[in-house]
Amino acid sequence: MPIDEFRRHAGAVVDRIADYLADVGELPVLSRVRPGDIRARVPAAMPEEGESMEDILADFDRLVVPGTTHWNHPGFFGYFAVTGSGPGILGEMLTAALNVNAMLWRTGPAATELEEACLDWIRRALGLPEGFAGEITDTASTSTLYALAAARDAAFPAARADGLAGLPPGRVYCSTETHSAAHKSVATLGMGYGGVRHIPVDGAFRMDARALAAAIREDRQGGLMPVAVVATTGTTGTAAIDPVRAIAEVCAGEGVWLHVDGAYGGPAAMVPGYEWVLDGAELADSIVVNPHKWLFVPIDCSVLLVKDRARLARAFSSTASFLTVPEPETRATNLMDYGLALGRRFRALKLWFVLRYFGANGIAERIAEHIRLASLFEAWVRDSEEWEVLAPRHLSLVAFRWRGPVGRAALPATSPHDLNEANERILERVNAGGEVFLSHTLLRRPGDEPVYALRLAVGNLRTTEEHVRKAWEALRRLEPPGPPGRHEENL
Amino acid sequence: MPIDEFRRHAGAVVDRIADYLADVGELPVLSRVRPGDIRARVPAAMPEEGESMEDILADFDRLVVPGTTHWNHPGFFGYFAVTGSGPGILGEMLTAALNVNAMLWRTGPAATELEEACLDWIRRALGLPEGFAGEITDTASTSTLYALAAARDAAFPAARADGLAGLPPGRVYCSTETHSAAHKSVATLGMGYGGVRHIPVDGAFRMDARALAAAIREDRQGGLMPVAVVATTGTTGTAAIDPVRAIAEVCAGEGVWLHVDGAYGGPAAMVPGYEWVLDGAELADSIVVNPHKWLFVPIDCSVLLVKDRARLARAFSSTASFLTVPEPETRATNLMDYGLALGRRFRALKLWFVLRYFGANGIAERIAEHIRLASLFEAWVRDSEEWEVLAPRHLSLVAFRWRGPVGRAALPATSPHDLNEANERILERVNAGGEVFLSHTLLRRPGDEPVYALRLAVGNLRTTEEHVRKAWEALRRLEPPGPPGRHEENL
Repeated sequence: MPIDEFRRHAGAVVDRIADYLADVGELPVLSRVRPGDIRARVPAAMPEEGESMEDILADFDRLVVPGTTHWNHPGFFGYFAVTGSGPGILGEMLTAALNVNAMLWRTGPAATELEEACLDWIRRALGLPEGFAGEITDTASTSTLYALAAARDAAFPAARADGLAGLPPGRVYCSTETHSAAHKSVATLGMGYGGVRHIPVDGAFRMDARALAAAIREDRQGGLMPVAVVATTGTTGTAAIDPVRAIAEVCAGEGVWLHVDGAYGGPAAMVPGYEWVLDGAELADSIVVNPHKWLFVPIDCSVLLVKDRARLARAFSSTASFLTVPEPETRATNLMDYGLALGRRFRALKLWFVLRYFGANGIAERIAEHIRLASLFEAWVRDSEEWEVLAPRHLSLVAFRWRGPVGRAALPATSPHDLNEANERILERVNAGGEVFLSHTLLRRPGDEPVYALRLAVGNLRTTEEHVRKAWEALRRLEPPGPPGRHEENL
Repeated sequence: MPIDEFRRHAGAVVDRIADYLADVGELPVLSRVRPGDIRARVPAAMPEEGESMEDILADFDRLVVPGTTHWNHPGFFGYFAVTGSGPGILGEMLTAALNVNAMLWRTGPAATELEEACLDWIRRALGLPEGFAGEITDTASTSTLYALAAARDAAFPAARADGLAGLPPGRVYCSTETHSAAHKSVATLGMGYGGVRHIPVDGAFRMDARALAAAIREDRQGGLMPVAVVATTGTTGTAAIDPVRAIAEVCAGEGVWLHVDGAYGGPAAMVPGYEWVLDGAELADSIVVNPHKWLFVPIDCSVLLVKDRARLARAFSSTASFLTVPEPETRATNLMDYGLALGRRFRALKLWFVLRYFGANGIAERIAEHIRLASLFEAWVRDSEEWEVLAPRHLSLVAFRWRGPVGRAALPATSPHDLNEANERILERVNAGGEVFLSHTLLRRPGDEPVYALRLAVGNLRTTEEHVRKAWEALRRLEPPGPPGRHEENL
């Protein structure tokens, strides 16, 4: 594309982006297209001859924007709400333009050294001791894979060379609330989905450290090899915060790798008064924090920090002859040595931009505001007799549900199934309204039936009190007029 | 960042990008900073208060541009040269702005369906039969990991649940020229680096299919489990093209998964007369092609196509309760089911832009031109008595070396070690010059000493005959005046 043409189209794209970000609150949050709608409007084969950028951008407006669920919308409260902030978008533009592959130091010196610098900035900001280092990956799934690969190879020193055949089965310990990324990683690493042992949670959905200790001992006696524990500070279901310090003590006593999943919750430790969120994480062997979740960096950007980075290299470094470097550079960091992927985007650039543009205080203030908005919503739910909060709220996520039109006393008569169904329908209706978007989870307290929980997660910089209030009003408008299961036609 | 501020800075960034792309040919290709130079100029902690975007962008100019090895430079001939084309950069800008996580269809309908559509465009363009489907990943390393995970779980049906402990050791077959990504994947999957068995190559660096068949039979008789074969169409060392059809016949006969690594070479099959590059790939179980290598898409974008996509789901699908979807959408594709990563950038957008902007013919013409430029360079090397081509050239990569100042007859007197050293020094000097950048590899013909080979890889849309000629002239200027090992001070 000739430079003048690029300049013209890029200007048009910037205008489009600015207009979109200014007006995204007017669009329906959840896309209204149906499965297959987009595909039906795309030709079966790529065009033989090139098309004009004008036509392509017109299709972007026509197909992509309405076919998108707007994670940028201030009413997006699903999963973990995120923000691709302005400085982050600017960073992505330059990353795309530089098109660096930072596999070796020499193929991207600035990309490599800014990655190391930003990781160290985050380490300090989270209160982790010196020595923790690692790399940026795409997602927490990959970060967890890398951490558990290092844990596996630490538990089974022969695995790097010879694999797992012939070794005792490995076990990774998670709570019942741990993110599915841990399960996928364990299976990918050759330990099978059955290699995950679930540790029960307490009433606040936190891993029971005593049950963990017992499980590890039992497995070891049974001839299994405890490989790692995954503790979470900010679970996906309810943002529960596992007792990391107690878990770390168990891990230290048993000589088991501790991985802390702070993908969502970790950055909260930057807020004065919330340092406790990562209490004990300094004792972990590895920790993941996702700047694309609650640090305003566009997807994808996940930070993996490992107490002893050589452990990562032990799992992943593999020198191919085309990747050897001249002598003076053998002491430089070649980030390909610390992970699976050889190709590495310059992801540090957007992170560097965002951390500098907001600064530590600016980030802490924004995270604190999200926590405040969630606490406000929590208070409204608590103040309403028809709704209830389902788990302690510490951060910016509220897990709650509608529990019926009457007072607490009437509830035992309602079947759990009907209540779940009623909440599922409320959620569908709210999301169909287009003003806000929430998601759900199933909560399982020990011994109880699974409970369908609605989740309101605050994480977008455009979200204000007004948007949270809109969510609450939309939910209240959809309250069924009678007890669950009896007036479904009114839902 | 307020919208007006974003608009202003984004405009400045676009100007910066356009100027950079227009003038990148004037910069030294290989960055001249030394290890630690960048880090020394970055504060130890993130700033407490936010900084202005003007200051941040000034630091980008001051630190990042000179600290970057310019993959965009028309004289970049290292590794595999690439292009982040204009439409691709525009796509990345919009991807960053939309900030979609296409984990579920509902969280990114357009992202999901355009990904499926683009994958099918590529499938057709490469001449693969209907049915091949998959997903976009970041890099060929990840694509290979996914493919070999599916292969492992196909070979060991119990592995998904119970892992590899107690099963016979798995073996993955590669040629001695196969990319290190395969080795890393095999180790990550729990089969160990020793789980890779290297198959010898012929004089053209192509896997010996008969040796492969013998190795598989031998391993099976020895109680090992053959899991997969990785064949490459366009190896990293010399762009050798393995005899995929013959290998596929071996795999079919033995019931072993065939993965084809067409990360670099695959797109050449779009050029009339080069369909043979993927001959036999239609018999493979999986194939990877990297649009960020030779399809002009900014890094990262790797396409994994699997004959039976359900095999991928078998390895990776894992339904967490927070990811369940309403009934009408359970039949839609949720791309998180086909890989490890839950978070998924909207990578299809840049691919869609690039494929449409150039069109199939435009892409084929550009790839053909790169092949022509490489063949031109090859001819110059062949015409020179002092230089030699080290492997057959089919695509856009030439593997060659300086072989001494005298005629062929004198060569046997020169030690292989001296010749390797002389070429290594030539390469360092050429790269230090800043006009061009080449990389190297070590080639091992059966029974011979390893040979240090220089590699000239054409893959940048800015590269013209003039730049290839500059590379040749720079190399010739650095020819040592005497035989290798005798006049090193002149190097």
